[in-house]
Amino acid sequence: MSADIVPLPRRSEPPPSLDPILALTASGMNAVNAVILERMQSEIPLIPALAGHLISGGGKRLRPMLTLAGAALAGYQGTRQHKLAAAVEFIHTATLLHDDVVDGSDLRRGKAAANIIFGNPATVLVGDFLFSRAFEVMVEDGSLKVLKILSAASAVIAEGEVDQLTAQRKIETSEARYLQIIRAKTAALFAASTRVAAVVAECEEDQESALDEYGRNLGVAFQLVDDALDYDADAAAMGKARGDDFREGKMTLPVILAYARGTEDERDFWKAAIGGHRTTDADLAEAIRLIAKYDAVAATRERARHFAQRAIDAISIFPDGKPRAAMAEAARFAVARGY
Amino acid sequence: MSADIVPLPRRSEPPPSLDPILALTASGMNAVNAVILERMQSEIPLIPALAGHLISGGGKRLRPMLTLAGAALAGYQGTRQHKLAAAVEFIHTATLLHDDVVDGSDLRRGKAAANIIFGNPATVLVGDFLFSRAFEVMVEDGSLKVLKILSAASAVIAEGEVDQLTAQRKIETSEARYLQIIRAKTAALFAASTRVAAVVAECEEDQESALDEYGRNLGVAFQLVDDALDYDADAAAMGKARGDDFREGKMTLPVILAYARGTEDERDFWKAAIGGHRTTDADLAEAIRLIAKYDAVAATRERARHFAQRAIDAISIFPDGKPRAAMAEAARFAVARGY
Repeated sequence: MSADIVPLPRRSEPPPSLDPILALTASGMNAVNAVILERMQSEIPLIPALAGHLISGGGKRLRPMLTLAGAALAGYQGTRQHKLAAAVEFIHTATLLHDDVVDGSDLRRGKAAANIIFGNPATVLVGDFLFSRAFEVMVEDGSLKVLKILSAASAVIAEGEVDQLTAQRKIETSEARYLQIIRAKTAALFAASTRVAAVVAECEEDQESALDEYGRNLGVAFQLVDDALDYDADAAAMGKARGDDFREGKMTLPVILAYARGTEDERDFWKAAIGGHRTTDADLAEAIRLIAKYDAVAATRERARHFAQRAIDAISIFPDGKPRAAMAEAARFAVARGY
Repeated sequence: MSADIVPLPRRSEPPPSLDPILALTASGMNAVNAVILERMQSEIPLIPALAGHLISGGGKRLRPMLTLAGAALAGYQGTRQHKLAAAVEFIHTATLLHDDVVDGSDLRRGKAAANIIFGNPATVLVGDFLFSRAFEVMVEDGSLKVLKILSAASAVIAEGEVDQLTAQRKIETSEARYLQIIRAKTAALFAASTRVAAVVAECEEDQESALDEYGRNLGVAFQLVDDALDYDADAAAMGKARGDDFREGKMTLPVILAYARGTEDERDFWKAAIGGHRTTDADLAEAIRLIAKYDAVAATRERARHFAQRAIDAISIFPDGKPRAAMAEAARFAVARGY
């Protein structure tokens, strides 16, 4: 079926969009957003103020949407997915808040990052609050299986983030190591967000695995493109502060590929840059030039296409219909976004 | 029964000690320590290195000991308390790691704090890992009631920490507000650590409440004395970097009482000091002098005695015996330690 193939994006075609999954999950997301707003409250006013800065800050809420879409794909008719999707978003928000502290970010989604406005201490602690609240909400749902999936995913995320720190400023980081890091720090929560949908729908094991695989591969594709956009000359308008990864010496696939494909002189540049000795705007311009020279953004997107295709194929065991089509389109969007 | 009264400490008597609770829980703590060591492992070497720095760093492991003592008090014969006590200690360790980042601490238990050795980013993330791991261990235990108690406590701890941030450098903070903060940031986990013992022992509601009350009041007493020691001229040898609270502008009871009991000139000093404008060693010496002048350390300890007495009375519904005597002695120790 041609609709289930992920083409490399061509500028002459209408780009894939999130519209189908947005339409599929619109009413469910109203319920999720109500849970999010209700459960981020606290008698300590700084907590909803800080949490709300990020939660109301224009995120796509992709992960809770995936939980709802997964539940629809599995034919689930109840409402348990609403709380669980909110819990997933709380875990995601907690990791973003801690990431902003860890990275010393100035911007998040084109706005001042929470740590800049509220300071590192409050940002760390409100992250902890949201994380705890996520577990409270899951406990209310009452499924030990869901709790197991999401507590394990949370530990894996933290491991991935620490692993990323360990690889920071290390030019010798391999593509395999990089994939291991993004599987943990990003894909684990995507996988959990779709897997819990299978659990509430009481799917058979093969369908639960399929939803896990869909989320996991989509998460890898998503992170690959995120990392490509940080070096994409066309992506300046995306709201993501371009060049952050470069200045922080994060080893992402565009750098890994440009380094591998480069000349000895170019490799010397990368060693100095990732080592933290060449991080000016002129150095960033040189990095973007080298990455363009070796088509490393396009190659990263091509890798993303591979994982998106695996995501789409994983859910082919489910009946054809709107949920599957919307989830396939979301995977194509993950590859083409910002293009 | 005279043994169940908390006297104000007198220097002529042998001080209360943790020896009875250490003896009561010694073999159980071996099992708990084995769980802690096993479950803090990760394929990412930085995680056990950083976690181990704090976990092996000479903490008393009071909270897991209280879980074991509570289980013994309730006559529980099984082994579920070992994993849960480890989970409690992981939550506690996670909050300490995040506290060190939040406070910018240099020292913890007389050693360099984790953030000084490993940096803030890794310290935040390993805290997240331990917190997630705590929930994984609880999920393995499989009691939704336990999960509810500890997830709620975790959210309350984070709220208390944020509330403390909000009160920082605010001289107008009242004793009531201060008690509210320490009930949340400290006593909630003590209460949860003893309450879960009642849950595994399948206690009746009154005994579960009694164990909760014991832990909660003990936690308040413990924090009061902790805060008193920061201004106690005799306590310099305790390993806690003295004057931390003062320099950070934390409003603790010794300051609240010295300010309330002080002259107008003295209050001007406190306003400047807590406001962050007088934080030299000479200013700290003046603060300690004023706190001594108004017996504010002794008064804080007297408040602690009140809560310790309530802790002891709460468990008087349990049969007399070694567990109750050891837990009463632990409450007396909380009041007298560092004296």
